[in-house]
Amino acid sequence: LPTYVDGSTRLYPLPPTPRAAKVLPEDLKTPDNHVERDPRLIRLTGVHPFNVEAPLSDLYDEGFLTTKDLHYVRNHGAVPRVEDAEVLDWEFTIEGMVSNPIKLTLRELIQTYDQVTYPITLVCAGNRRKEQNIVRKTKGFSWGAAGVSTALWTGVALPDLLARAMPTRGAKYVCFEGADKLPNGYYGTSVKLNWAQDPDRGMMVAHGMNGEPLHPDHGKPLRIVIPGQIGGRSVKWLKRIIVTAAPSDNWYHIYDNRVLPMMISPEDSANLPDTWKDERYAIYDLNTNSAICYPAHGETVPLTGGGGGAVETYKLKGYAYAGGGKRVTRLEVTLDQGRTWMLAPVSYPEDLYRLAPDGEVLFGGRLDMAWRESCFCWCFWEIDLPLSRLQEAGDVMIRAMDDSMMVQPRDMYWSVLGMMNNPWYRVVIHKEAHSLRFEHPTQPALMPGGWMERVKKEGGNITNGFWGEKMAGEDAAPAQEEP
Amino acid sequence: LPTYVDGSTRLYPLPPTPRAAKVLPEDLKTPDNHVERDPRLIRLTGVHPFNVEAPLSDLYDEGFLTTKDLHYVRNHGAVPRVEDAEVLDWEFTIEGMVSNPIKLTLRELIQTYDQVTYPITLVCAGNRRKEQNIVRKTKGFSWGAAGVSTALWTGVALPDLLARAMPTRGAKYVCFEGADKLPNGYYGTSVKLNWAQDPDRGMMVAHGMNGEPLHPDHGKPLRIVIPGQIGGRSVKWLKRIIVTAAPSDNWYHIYDNRVLPMMISPEDSANLPDTWKDERYAIYDLNTNSAICYPAHGETVPLTGGGGGAVETYKLKGYAYAGGGKRVTRLEVTLDQGRTWMLAPVSYPEDLYRLAPDGEVLFGGRLDMAWRESCFCWCFWEIDLPLSRLQEAGDVMIRAMDDSMMVQPRDMYWSVLGMMNNPWYRVVIHKEAHSLRFEHPTQPALMPGGWMERVKKEGGNITNGFWGEKMAGEDAAPAQEEP
Repeated sequence: LPTYVDGSTRLYPLPPTPRAAKVLPEDLKTPDNHVERDPRLIRLTGVHPFNVEAPLSDLYDEGFLTTKDLHYVRNHGAVPRVEDAEVLDWEFTIEGMVSNPIKLTLRELIQTYDQVTYPITLVCAGNRRKEQNIVRKTKGFSWGAAGVSTALWTGVALPDLLARAMPTRGAKYVCFEGADKLPNGYYGTSVKLNWAQDPDRGMMVAHGMNGEPLHPDHGKPLRIVIPGQIGGRSVKWLKRIIVTAAPSDNWYHIYDNRVLPMMISPEDSANLPDTWKDERYAIYDLNTNSAICYPAHGETVPLTGGGGGAVETYKLKGYAYAGGGKRVTRLEVTLDQGRTWMLAPVSYPEDLYRLAPDGEVLFGGRLDMAWRESCFCWCFWEIDLPLSRLQEAGDVMIRAMDDSMMVQPRDMYWSVLGMMNNPWYRVVIHKEAHSLRFEHPTQPALMPGGWMERVKKEGGNITNGFWGEKMAGEDAAPAQEEP
Repeated sequence: LPTYVDGSTRLYPLPPTPRAAKVLPEDLKTPDNHVERDPRLIRLTGVHPFNVEAPLSDLYDEGFLTTKDLHYVRNHGAVPRVEDAEVLDWEFTIEGMVSNPIKLTLRELIQTYDQVTYPITLVCAGNRRKEQNIVRKTKGFSWGAAGVSTALWTGVALPDLLARAMPTRGAKYVCFEGADKLPNGYYGTSVKLNWAQDPDRGMMVAHGMNGEPLHPDHGKPLRIVIPGQIGGRSVKWLKRIIVTAAPSDNWYHIYDNRVLPMMISPEDSANLPDTWKDERYAIYDLNTNSAICYPAHGETVPLTGGGGGAVETYKLKGYAYAGGGKRVTRLEVTLDQGRTWMLAPVSYPEDLYRLAPDGEVLFGGRLDMAWRESCFCWCFWEIDLPLSRLQEAGDVMIRAMDDSMMVQPRDMYWSVLGMMNNPWYRVVIHKEAHSLRFEHPTQPALMPGGWMERVKKEGGNITNGFWGEKMAGEDAAPAQEEP
């Protein structure tokens, strides 16, 4: 256990030590030639812009907190260059429908306002999109299941800043704008003012990540961080907070991070401006999702036939998360395609921060987690299963349920941007001569592999409700009606 | 449109006028022989205690607001008898972990505190449970799809009362206890203090329903009303509010209103006290759900072959709701068992209250809805479909999605108490000589009818992912892989 200054031990996790990083050769030819990065990260959109996830096993192995080395990154363009010497002079504004417009530097933000530190899981709305792209190409690039990461973020609670600025009557939204100049203007988006003013939701303006100033890929020197919502709302390189009566009219707010109704095709979508602007299709809160991290894709487990010192069980492991402060309340595992389910124990490292002593300060910010009932972070599940049962099964699938008793669905919800993909996570089990080999749904980016691509190539209909296989019960034991 | 005193018109709905009611002959022999009721209500647990829902069409036809005539009722035992003359002297307390314990009468509550009026949809956690009971008998009785109703509730915001009582350090829960004495003590339950103190969640202590004092079945003279949570938390005949460090230890809090993991059988559940006490399985927020109200069960629609003055389309209609303040953001309809979906327009009458003038008072309470982003009420969908398409289809199904992008699942989540049933709502279409006949999944209570009972009797496996039918694509056109 980590030790306090006073010699007592901390109950909650601290971040792993990051590796020494340097500018990678492939970045030298790009505008990001000033950004140090970890070579393990998988590039999802070629060399530039930088959109990456870690290998799923590496991400899982780092534990509850992700270092900046392996934290996923979603950059729309070049990373704004801010020298260390300029960081504290970074200026931003709070303007629009406020009685008291504010312009302040990062130095003033740190000196004038209460600082808080929260553990927060960020998730890209495109997490698991590769699965959707195999069903039918979306407009988005191919995330695997590692578009999710957790860090300790330090900064100022957004409700405090808004209270100082005093929104005026009729104000309903808060827009955020970054310094990243893109083909369609600066990146920007908005959330509802009511949420931004609610301390329970934990929105913050952050200048620290895992006890260090922000890494350039994560918004150096200042960004928004919103627990429980998609990463696309947590604007990096923050320059302006604008209180408004209407949602952001920024191009990226309207034409990104939306789940249009599934019957709208890429072709149709080009001519539906009112559909794009319908705020009901904008994604804010994350949906409930989960993934199997172990066994990894391609992992093989020897079958020894039991006895001796042989491994008799295999421990399956993975993550789950929910959005909007909700808790994942159960994680279930099936070896018979959903006819019966087993319960996998779930651990919530986030709850350890709630036990910190009153007034606990971490990385210069108050932890302030004890009174909150909401969940800001992912959780972990694991279950030991006899190898013999895995050997008998054709696949293993998981699903999470959240505290509003919504459960991940069997069926994929495909939409034109490819977002919020959360059907049951399925790993196929192949029996080989003396071992089991595991096959995930996909591999990220253009990496080949995964049962979805394979089944599709073989002519299977992967959206038939049975993953392109025959109906449960046709080629196995008769289905039981009573669960 | 209803007219204001000043001659302008109200944009928002007002309740329909209730019918004159009287004590029904069947209630004369019961302890409820003082309670006037509407004979249309369907009794789900014999004559007594009184647990009822309206016929689904009657409920729908009343519109956004439900009269006390047709509002569903869930009574665990006899209705406490309170004479009109005693109402204002009704006493209740706020006690436990508070600096300032409060005892006050309803008269003082009305005279001393700000009054608010909100439209709130209440839903029984057992809504649609009959479907679960057909799959496998649960411990709960058989609700149809009309265990949901909406009224205008008037009372005092719970955060105001709690602020006056001043919860002390370490307080985490708020327990509610009613005056209804039951075999296992007074009915009681709890919610999290953090939620109860949050004005956004809209919890209230209510003494008015649709502009009248509470009807005995709805808690006369005082009850809790909690938007977005299951009805079981909205304690009726309120006597005590107790602030505590731990969840309620009331028998009804622990052994009712929970979704235990589905693999736990009725037999196993008797010996799992720790499982029952796991707060992760307690239901608070409603899950997302929807139903088809028209066509009604048994409704027939003539097929005229088109031309002349014949009806060429049929308008399908129904309701949807989500929990925890979430909005239903889309309602989709399929005629090919989920291979393709159509979007049904959704209306939100609740939003009309948000447009009321500032300070608007209704039934003695401030409407106070304009600033809130959360949804407290059900919404309605409808879609016109050509009769020819209904004639070609074997069934019609619907599913709702909420603003956290969670969608109702294909698969039923069965659990021992039978709660929160929310798979796609399916109506079977039968082709008869010159008409179409529609068949809902079930009929409430012991009423026969519905495709679930029929398919089960015919030996079909109704939990096979295809409603006991052959796999989609086997007996119809080949399934298309791309949606």
